[in-house]
Amino acid sequence: MMRLDEAPAVVTAGLGLFNDSLGAQAAEVTPVAWRPPLPGTEDALAAVATDPRTVVANAEAVRRLTTSRPRLVGIERAGDALGLERGEFLHAGPPIAWADASGPVRGALLGAIVYENMADSVEAAEALAPMVSLAPTHSRHAVGPMAGVVSPSMPVFVMHDDVFGSTAYCTLNEGLGKVLRFGAYSNEVIERLQWMERVLAPVLAATLRRHGPVDLPSILAQALQMGDEGHNRNRAGTSLFIREIVADLIGVELPTADLAAALRFINGNDHFMLNLAMGMGKAAADCARDLPGSTMVVAMARNGTEFGIQTAGTGDAWFTGPAEVPEGLYFSGFTAEDANPDLGDSTIMETVGLGGFAMAAAPAIVQFVGGDVSAAIENTQRMYEITLAEHPLYQIPALGFRGTPAGIDVTLVVRTDTVPVVNTGIAGREPGVGQVGAGIVDPPRQAFVDAATALAGRAQAVADMTLPAATLTSEKSELLPSS
Amino acid sequence: MMRLDEAPAVVTAGLGLFNDSLGAQAAEVTPVAWRPPLPGTEDALAAVATDPRTVVANAEAVRRLTTSRPRLVGIERAGDALGLERGEFLHAGPPIAWADASGPVRGALLGAIVYENMADSVEAAEALAPMVSLAPTHSRHAVGPMAGVVSPSMPVFVMHDDVFGSTAYCTLNEGLGKVLRFGAYSNEVIERLQWMERVLAPVLAATLRRHGPVDLPSILAQALQMGDEGHNRNRAGTSLFIREIVADLIGVELPTADLAAALRFINGNDHFMLNLAMGMGKAAADCARDLPGSTMVVAMARNGTEFGIQTAGTGDAWFTGPAEVPEGLYFSGFTAEDANPDLGDSTIMETVGLGGFAMAAAPAIVQFVGGDVSAAIENTQRMYEITLAEHPLYQIPALGFRGTPAGIDVTLVVRTDTVPVVNTGIAGREPGVGQVGAGIVDPPRQAFVDAATALAGRAQAVADMTLPAATLTSEKSELLPSS
Repeated sequence: MMRLDEAPAVVTAGLGLFNDSLGAQAAEVTPVAWRPPLPGTEDALAAVATDPRTVVANAEAVRRLTTSRPRLVGIERAGDALGLERGEFLHAGPPIAWADASGPVRGALLGAIVYENMADSVEAAEALAPMVSLAPTHSRHAVGPMAGVVSPSMPVFVMHDDVFGSTAYCTLNEGLGKVLRFGAYSNEVIERLQWMERVLAPVLAATLRRHGPVDLPSILAQALQMGDEGHNRNRAGTSLFIREIVADLIGVELPTADLAAALRFINGNDHFMLNLAMGMGKAAADCARDLPGSTMVVAMARNGTEFGIQTAGTGDAWFTGPAEVPEGLYFSGFTAEDANPDLGDSTIMETVGLGGFAMAAAPAIVQFVGGDVSAAIENTQRMYEITLAEHPLYQIPALGFRGTPAGIDVTLVVRTDTVPVVNTGIAGREPGVGQVGAGIVDPPRQAFVDAATALAGRAQAVADMTLPAATLTSEKSELLPSS
Repeated sequence: MMRLDEAPAVVTAGLGLFNDSLGAQAAEVTPVAWRPPLPGTEDALAAVATDPRTVVANAEAVRRLTTSRPRLVGIERAGDALGLERGEFLHAGPPIAWADASGPVRGALLGAIVYENMADSVEAAEALAPMVSLAPTHSRHAVGPMAGVVSPSMPVFVMHDDVFGSTAYCTLNEGLGKVLRFGAYSNEVIERLQWMERVLAPVLAATLRRHGPVDLPSILAQALQMGDEGHNRNRAGTSLFIREIVADLIGVELPTADLAAALRFINGNDHFMLNLAMGMGKAAADCARDLPGSTMVVAMARNGTEFGIQTAGTGDAWFTGPAEVPEGLYFSGFTAEDANPDLGDSTIMETVGLGGFAMAAAPAIVQFVGGDVSAAIENTQRMYEITLAEHPLYQIPALGFRGTPAGIDVTLVVRTDTVPVVNTGIAGREPGVGQVGAGIVDPPRQAFVDAATALAGRAQAVADMTLPAATLTSEKSELLPSS
């Protein structure tokens, strides 16, 4: 038997049973959160860890992400803004072909084909659909919630960041339930899209011309003090956006009935702010793209079949894994049986430190996505382990005004086996159904493992070049802010 | 030395040192929150505790308080709605004469005299002021924040509760800083009041005619999910009120410039909802008045010199004590030296279970009134000790959607020596200065002791009548809801 003169101080790491056993013997134990890295990633992690570019590149990536201030500057026709020709359609997430597309993506594409007057019925659209041109929204600096289908006639919000010069686009939110983005395509869906193009977009465009750019990060920062997290809860943001623009909207020289109808439409949909936040998020994340050596995630997006990510250090490459079905609360009459796997570009919110990462600011969200308030707070707290910074603008009152965890580091995800928490809407798996619920979903670990492997490959390539020291210094200095 | 065969189970009540000492000896201690009642109140508490009417009367009082649903039904001229004649002025809190009035009340009265064209300068108003007729707002079913001065020409919101039939009134909020209610009376103050009468009130009155009654409790319930507490933080409530009415406001047949100016004014003032909430609170609390035997508080209000309360069991009697200076945060350039003692009818919010009682819903408020988030949560939790119910409509997400503590019981305050927590604006002590800060204040214990004594006197009078059982039953049955 070992005897000690003083009580032992024990630190346990990843040994729950040992920790409990010591505690039961009244020993003082300091447990440390630690889990082994994902299996088979040790070499990749070692390669990235020795990449001399990473520290500076990640500092610059997260600086750009958190100091960009994208503003809403206008509304344009998607065809003009994104260079979309007739017959070209965008969808959410990583690239996918019609043959592999899930029900809600197919439903939304069929609806968009009818909306574009390329077919006069859903049946006629079904014959055309396998032939249309498909591309990911992200490939055109755009994002769209859920199916994320963008067609040339749709109006899109235009966001611009004056600090780093990025521009991004997002469609206008249609509301909940039977809407195109959840795969519905009935007449009411198409007629609403037509009304949005004919009435809503011109009213808002004219309002924005009178108002000038709208400071979306400021609205989101306030909304976080008001119980929003910017992804699944946007009641405060929508309210503040209305307050921001309404005095200018009143003065627009269009029929009063149109102005009132536009306001009633926005008022009737607490998620109207979501698409504005997403466009803002896309513009912010794009500021951090293409920084060699950076392991920071600049996009997370789902096409209903696969969940994909992009990083600042790997250009336009997608790293994907199978999309899972969220766990959550279902609308009356629906169950998990009706749910499509995870879908949409709205994970751009988590990418910039909002959404699931900011759930501690939004205790009321548990009534929409399930769980309890303590779990919501824990979700946010866990994300500090895999992020590079605390967002200086987005603060959480319940955590003593701590900034939200922002800037996901692929290597931290892999090393701690902690994946980003995403809260999301749930689409029906059959085309035409629409939204069936909302919940929380885990991204596939494979996407992060593949990204780490690719980053390791690029790090190894740099090491293999055995660059002279002077060249390395010069490459680093390119990452510093220009004066 | 005493020896025990088993470890002792010790319950300590109000004996902190004993509790700590036992704990240090590794004894298992269950501390119970208990404090002795306020000195000299034992007889009064005993008399009220044996009043056979109290249990039923308090149940009915809190039922009326928490199930009333006062709605905003219109805007009227105070003179017409409250029967105020020229030369009559109302003020916040319990009754007070000009000679005893504090600086901000005097300043507001001087400004109101000028606003009513009874004097053409503040100097001329000072000569008139000691002669004008003064009465408390509460005596006319009205409330007003801070000085609470109401004069005949001012527009007032009209609230009506369809469930119990009460009607209440409140002035329109002027904004922050140099405003009449904080005792300022400069030209800009008077001109703003004139504009509110000439432009704002007609726009809102016409909007309400188009819209119909506005469900204020529903807006406040949502606002509590969005970080408001309904007293010092009203950003969400103001936003939701604007959303509620704006589509009808657009259709009002008044000049577009007036509509836009009215909206910009409301948008520019996150406290616009406060006065709507106060009128709602007054109408709700008045539903519970005049229930013999009830020990529930139906009004708390301050006139800048005294803090007064009224109870359901003591009619229109005021029980008062000296108003204290709040502890809080001061605006740039001001300190506690500049502060007037506690002022205003806005404590009607705490009376109905909001304001300080709902601080756990509003973590961001600590940046306005001081303290930290955990203190805000503790303030709410402490109030459950002195209240009769949890409000079914006003829920706090951070406390697992628990209802706010509602219905202050005078005997619980006295028995536990726990006074209601109030958060409030702070007025400058000199007339003409305006707001200097915001903070948290304790009501005087004397007001609650005197109320308990008066309730005991009434209980004793009932006991002395040695009523036959039949009469007692009949009196009780009057308290049951009429069918």
